Amino acid sequence: MEPVKPPGLRKRQATIVDVAEAAGVAIGTVSRHLNGLPVRTSNRDQIERAIADLGYRRNAVAVSMKTDTTHIVGLMVPSLGEFHAALLEKLSRKMRLTGRAVLSFCHDQQPQSIAEGLEFFASHRVDALIIDGEERLRSQILKYVDDGLIVVLYDNDIPGLPVDRVFVENRRASARLVDHLLDLGHTRIATIHGNLRDSAARDRLAGFHDAYAGHGMAAAPELVVSGDWRETGGYACLRDLMAMSSPPTAVFCANYNMTLGALTWAREHGIRIPDDLSLVSFDDVPAFRMHSPGITAVGQPLERLAEAMTDLLSDRLANPETLGRSTIAIDCDIILRGSARPAR
Amino acid sequence: MEPVKPPGLRKRQATIVDVAEAAGVAIGTVSRHLNGLPVRTSNRDQIERAIADLGYRRNAVAVSMKTDTTHIVGLMVPSLGEFHAALLEKLSRKMRLTGRAVLSFCHDQQPQSIAEGLEFFASHRVDALIIDGEERLRSQILKYVDDGLIVVLYDNDIPGLPVDRVFVENRRASARLVDHLLDLGHTRIATIHGNLRDSAARDRLAGFHDAYAGHGMAAAPELVVSGDWRETGGYACLRDLMAMSSPPTAVFCANYNMTLGALTWAREHGIRIPDDLSLVSFDDVPAFRMHSPGITAVGQPLERLAEAMTDLLSDRLANPETLGRSTIAIDCDIILRGSARPAR
Repeated sequence: MEPVKPPGLRKRQATIVDVAEAAGVAIGTVSRHLNGLPVRTSNRDQIERAIADLGYRRNAVAVSMKTDTTHIVGLMVPSLGEFHAALLEKLSRKMRLTGRAVLSFCHDQQPQSIAEGLEFFASHRVDALIIDGEERLRSQILKYVDDGLIVVLYDNDIPGLPVDRVFVENRRASARLVDHLLDLGHTRIATIHGNLRDSAARDRLAGFHDAYAGHGMAAAPELVVSGDWRETGGYACLRDLMAMSSPPTAVFCANYNMTLGALTWAREHGIRIPDDLSLVSFDDVPAFRMHSPGITAVGQPLERLAEAMTDLLSDRLANPETLGRSTIAIDCDIILRGSARPAR
Repeated sequence: MEPVKPPGLRKRQATIVDVAEAAGVAIGTVSRHLNGLPVRTSNRDQIERAIADLGYRRNAVAVSMKTDTTHIVGLMVPSLGEFHAALLEKLSRKMRLTGRAVLSFCHDQQPQSIAEGLEFFASHRVDALIIDGEERLRSQILKYVDDGLIVVLYDNDIPGLPVDRVFVENRRASARLVDHLLDLGHTRIATIHGNLRDSAARDRLAGFHDAYAGHGMAAAPELVVSGDWRETGGYACLRDLMAMSSPPTAVFCANYNMTLGALTWAREHGIRIPDDLSLVSFDDVPAFRMHSPGITAVGQPLERLAEAMTDLLSDRLANPETLGRSTIAIDCDIILRGSARPAR
């Protein structure tokens, strides 16, 4: 058994007043010392001894009121599925190196939650807010930006807002992935895209069309379907596509959830990948390596995304008088694994 | 383009003093109103109008100093891999319903980071700290508990600390999973276990031995190996096990990372699951569904874990004068998928 304090009210924390009293110096002297300003050596030693004796810790809440910086960066995410969680892990590491912690808030795309989250971060005076953009947040975010909050958009854009942005090259990477299918001779390629309210969905779909255009062709309109980013959407979309009189020979899924759904439907209905159907995906997750065959996919460079966000915020926080307007767009790798084969 | 404020210093936020001035009432009257106490109707209307005109927001940092509660719960995690991320998502949702947000800090098992994280949470006066226990944190956590911080251990225990605990039934679930292999007639079953510094690793290993004992047998010592929770560990362990003169016919991996490593080695070396080797795992992730065949696994009930943590903390925060000592142990489901077959 550990020795423990008997149950009772929370022990009162030592304050700067207690330290001054114990050290026999003025409160202002303790304050000077804590703020790194010079004090007489004898006073310094007394203060240090009092701090150690009393177990005094600076109250970060109080300190933050004075310096107007909390060393907390807020991250608002719609979910903590693989992409956002992996990014949060890497972002936490990078930010920690700059002395900041990342406070994450998962809003589930509920308008009420989003409003609460924004208000929460604003009232807790985070140094900055990193947020997955969404059109309906425009006026709320603008209000907080106007109040002085530093905001960085990632994943999805809200065009025109005076904020910083860090994205991946959604359009270019999607085009390269679909190029790969066209190069293999496929002409009936479907895409299961995300919710087109999101810029990432629009950009990935634009990349799909770019690839067709680059080959002097156009996609069949009936092969462009929405899976709403969801596993159930990917499942239903592949079912409907394969029920067509002239089904696609290849599919590009615009995120990993929809791919998991499509793969589940394919497995349940004896559709072999890639023999019966070629399938490629945006995002890369362990499940794609474990699938037989592995799934050819766009890997988002999370490490570089996290680094770009951290560098950008460090610059911005060092110059808080400037309004953010820079956009960083990071290239993605295409990882070939064998889930696409030449068209027959 | 959005209308924006010209670049400049952060706009000064309206304070309670500004509100009192604009409303033509005393500061104390504004304070009474903000704290829900009755004020004269005419004053109330004046105050509400001033708040709206000035865009006044209560400063949560200042409020928290007075009430000694920040409505933030800290979560310290070693990583944000699938288990911890999925738990964080569910915990954020449950906690939000009680008006609290979850601040996560990812420490990467670096002693320096752990100390920084603990100090960070203590100095930011979180309402409570949820932490994956680890023996070397014993004295640090005890110090913070002694200072009045409410702590909940999850995932791994630190025996004897006067705190609350929420775990899954690691030992019992592992025993049931290994029972399944024994029932199929396997007698040479290996286990790739986690780092035995962690109670979850010890408990899952104890469950492995329990199952053998329940069948009146004992495991071959050479088939009990450590993969240190890591994918590379699982990979190396399966390689070494299969190189034995009498290799196992079945393997129990104690987490998903080690399973991913073992599956990768098996695939690279033409070992078919379950024809050549039966394989079962603790944890359940999408990759296990996508594997052919699906991997039989212990699913941790994250929803119920998150709920138990939230309920427990709500109780504890409502009665802060009591020292936590309750332990909640949650049962797990075994999900049969076909990665184990009868021994030949």
